[in-house]
Amino acid sequence: MTDKAKTERVVHVPLGERAYDILIGPGLIGRAGGEISTRISGRKAAIVTDENVGALYLEELMDGLEADGIDATSITLPAGEKTKSFEHLTKVCDTLLSARIERNDAVIALGGGVIGDLTGFAAGIVRRGVRFVQIPTSLLAQVDSSVGGKTGINTRHGKNLVGVFNQPDLVLADSDALQTLSEREFRAGYAELAKYGLIDKPDFFAWLETNWQAVFAGGPERIEAIAVSCQAKADVVVADERESGRRALLNLGHTFGHALEAATGYDSARLVHGEGVAIGMVLAHEFSARLNLASPDDAARAEAHLKSVGLPTRIGDIPGVAPTVEELMEAIGQDKKVKGGQLTFILTHGIGRAFVADDVPSSEVIRFLEEKLGQ
Amino acid sequence: MTDKAKTERVVHVPLGERAYDILIGPGLIGRAGGEISTRISGRKAAIVTDENVGALYLEELMDGLEADGIDATSITLPAGEKTKSFEHLTKVCDTLLSARIERNDAVIALGGGVIGDLTGFAAGIVRRGVRFVQIPTSLLAQVDSSVGGKTGINTRHGKNLVGVFNQPDLVLADSDALQTLSEREFRAGYAELAKYGLIDKPDFFAWLETNWQAVFAGGPERIEAIAVSCQAKADVVVADERESGRRALLNLGHTFGHALEAATGYDSARLVHGEGVAIGMVLAHEFSARLNLASPDDAARAEAHLKSVGLPTRIGDIPGVAPTVEELMEAIGQDKKVKGGQLTFILTHGIGRAFVADDVPSSEVIRFLEEKLGQ
Ligand SMILES: NC(=O)c1ccc[n+]([C@@H]2O[C@H](COP(=O)([O-])OP(=O)(O)OC[C@H]3O[C@@H](n4cnc5c(N)ncnc54)[C@H](O)[C@@H]3O)[C@@H](O)[C@H]2O)c1
Ligand SMILES: NC(=O)c1ccc[n+]([C@@H]2O[C@H](COP(=O)([O-])OP(=O)(O)OC[C@H]3O[C@@H](n4cnc5c(N)ncnc54)[C@H](O)[C@@H]3O)[C@@H](O)[C@H]2O)c1
Ligand SMILES: [Zn+2]
Ligand SMILES: [Zn+2]
Repeated sequence: MTDKAKTERVVHVPLGERAYDILIGPGLIGRAGGEISTRISGRKAAIVTDENVGALYLEELMDGLEADGIDATSITLPAGEKTKSFEHLTKVCDTLLSARIERNDAVIALGGGVIGDLTGFAAGIVRRGVRFVQIPTSLLAQVDSSVGGKTGINTRHGKNLVGVFNQPDLVLADSDALQTLSEREFRAGYAELAKYGLIDKPDFFAWLETNWQAVFAGGPERIEAIAVSCQAKADVVVADERESGRRALLNLGHTFGHALEAATGYDSARLVHGEGVAIGMVLAHEFSARLNLASPDDAARAEAHLKSVGLPTRIGDIPGVAPTVEELMEAIGQDKKVKGGQLTFILTHGIGRAFVADDVPSSEVIRFLEEKLGQ
Repeated sequence: MTDKAKTERVVHVPLGERAYDILIGPGLIGRAGGEISTRISGRKAAIVTDENVGALYLEELMDGLEADGIDATSITLPAGEKTKSFEHLTKVCDTLLSARIERNDAVIALGGGVIGDLTGFAAGIVRRGVRFVQIPTSLLAQVDSSVGGKTGINTRHGKNLVGVFNQPDLVLADSDALQTLSEREFRAGYAELAKYGLIDKPDFFAWLETNWQAVFAGGPERIEAIAVSCQAKADVVVADERESGRRALLNLGHTFGHALEAATGYDSARLVHGEGVAIGMVLAHEFSARLNLASPDDAARAEAHLKSVGLPTRIGDIPGVAPTVEELMEAIGQDKKVKGGQLTFILTHGIGRAFVADDVPSSEVIRFLEEKLGQ
């Protein structure tokens, strides 16, 4: 307990009826039963996980739940972005119904953002909504996808085009779990973490420039960086739960990033989400500079930091044949941030000074991309 | 316009941000474009319909939309309960995304409850929610399924087990469309209409006992009866949008009804939803009488009226091999109204005096069904 008190952080997300806590610290997977049973009345749970994470943490979680009197079943899905599909959604719903999960029972997502997004969607539609607990195990999921209530799956038309808003009842971000995450995935999550600095926390960005090695190494700086990120996301979500205005800032780097993911066929060997975001954020800074909205020095500074942690920062860093401008524009057109044909972009006036521009002419985007790609 | 003013009724559903109007009257399919374009900013629409209804009304609706400057695409699905599936949900979502329906564009359900439930679900999850218009064409859909925001599909575990709450932005109940509905389907819808009388409107039930022939014939009594029903449902929904308490009253007859539908394999040749509800309501009255909660005279009166309009009222009225008690109890166990293992039933103290009982021992239900089925 003293250990817990020393290191555990709690971020409360005050969403009225849908308020919830995010606990951040070591050992939370083992203690999940206790944290869940004080908050959720049902005595049944169904865990959704993927093959990688399941092999590492499913048993520990099941044992902990059982010790606290919660009867748990589980389903283990293939790892990777392709699991966010109608096919797997159908399978998960079937599992929850077979397990007779009722409204006050818990559906638990144990894994990265893929498992969190898919499971949150299933939990939001089975019996028109059952209780939902996120146990994010990737850095990206801990600082981003597990907070805020967006859930969904991909279709052939693009990413996250089908889903619901479904706030979790509890988020348990176990910092120990990150020890088994690959370097590459950790870096990808770091891109989202750095994003909060680039949006509106210049001091946090500067702190990261100094402390990033400690964040990568683990320990108190890592927990601190995760907590700052969760708080930053929670603040935006509370101000704008359904993404009509300010929440769009969280998409910094994402219009380009999603387009790159689409144009590379969601092939994680080539590009994972956070890497697309890293490149996308640099592009957003460069595009802003090109439109004379920001200094090129800020774009250079953003790129330098992301590069120093080992992230890709240019389209040319992606292995394989570069996407064409046409492919990227097609993907941008299908992105959710299109209103009445006009393009909405998150642009910036500099580090920590991002803003929503909803009148970006697509001709400018095309010209910029043509330059970048030399096409 | 004078014609419209004389006959059209409007029921407003005051749900704050999600408030909407139900228009009831003749000629609304042809006038849909005007009604939609004053309420919804997008200039695109996608219509979902079934083969029967599409053949009769799709062209008229498309022409009307076009005349009002709305660019519409459509998808026509097979008619029948089996269409409420993950497979067709996937197909509808794909159609909406192919048509590039955006958040402020309209997805229109043109058909009975099957199309309404499926389409409302798709509209609620595509881009995490786009605009949704109900054009209910069956009596059941006009008095029940199009009002209240429940949407969903069936799974092998039971009916409506997967879905979302998604209030429509507008409901257009065209009373002319009912002219082409089969007698059998009209009667099935009538069961739901009579339900509002049985729940808490004894005067409306008595009015129906006198005026049912005029309601079947068409004209002002029909519009009146539909408006009373929509108002009744709207009142309950407003008091309890997410079905924690009073809304459960709308399930009068439905626990037994759903079980009968499941046990007859959702085979509409044997039983359609409203027929199941008619038998279920009589069973609920008889079960209440058996538990000494109501007089057997009320059960007899409810049955007599439903029988006089030509509805089935006993399990034995269903063609084919009667379901077993075991089959029915299995279906009841999967029904959504199960909490922590205990059975919730809508019982009654008499005509217009229904109430929620959430502590019904399943042993009593089994005994009652054994008697009814002579098993
Ligand atoms: N809902 C939102 O608001 C939101 C926000 C951002 C991203 N996302 C989504 O999140 C997804 C990306 O999330 P992600 O990067 O976590 O991907 P992911 O879930 O695929 O996880 C990445 C890889 O790491 C593995 N992994 C996860 N935790 C591990 C651990 N502790 N030890 C070892 N291996 C582990 C996984 O098995 C997987 O192979 C995308 O689908 C994206 O759209 C959603
Ligand atoms: N969402 C809710 O709150 C709610 C409430 C009650 C029922 N429901 C659902 O509604 C469904 C039943 O609705 P339904 O009875 O309308 O079934 P339905 O949609 O299958 O329609 C019945 C039949 O009538 C045909 N039809 C419809 N309108 C017609 C018209 N104007 N002319 C000629 N033919 C027409 C249809 O093609 C179909 O063959 C069930 O799935 C039930 O679960 C939902
Ligand atoms: Zn992201
Ligand atoms: Zn019904």
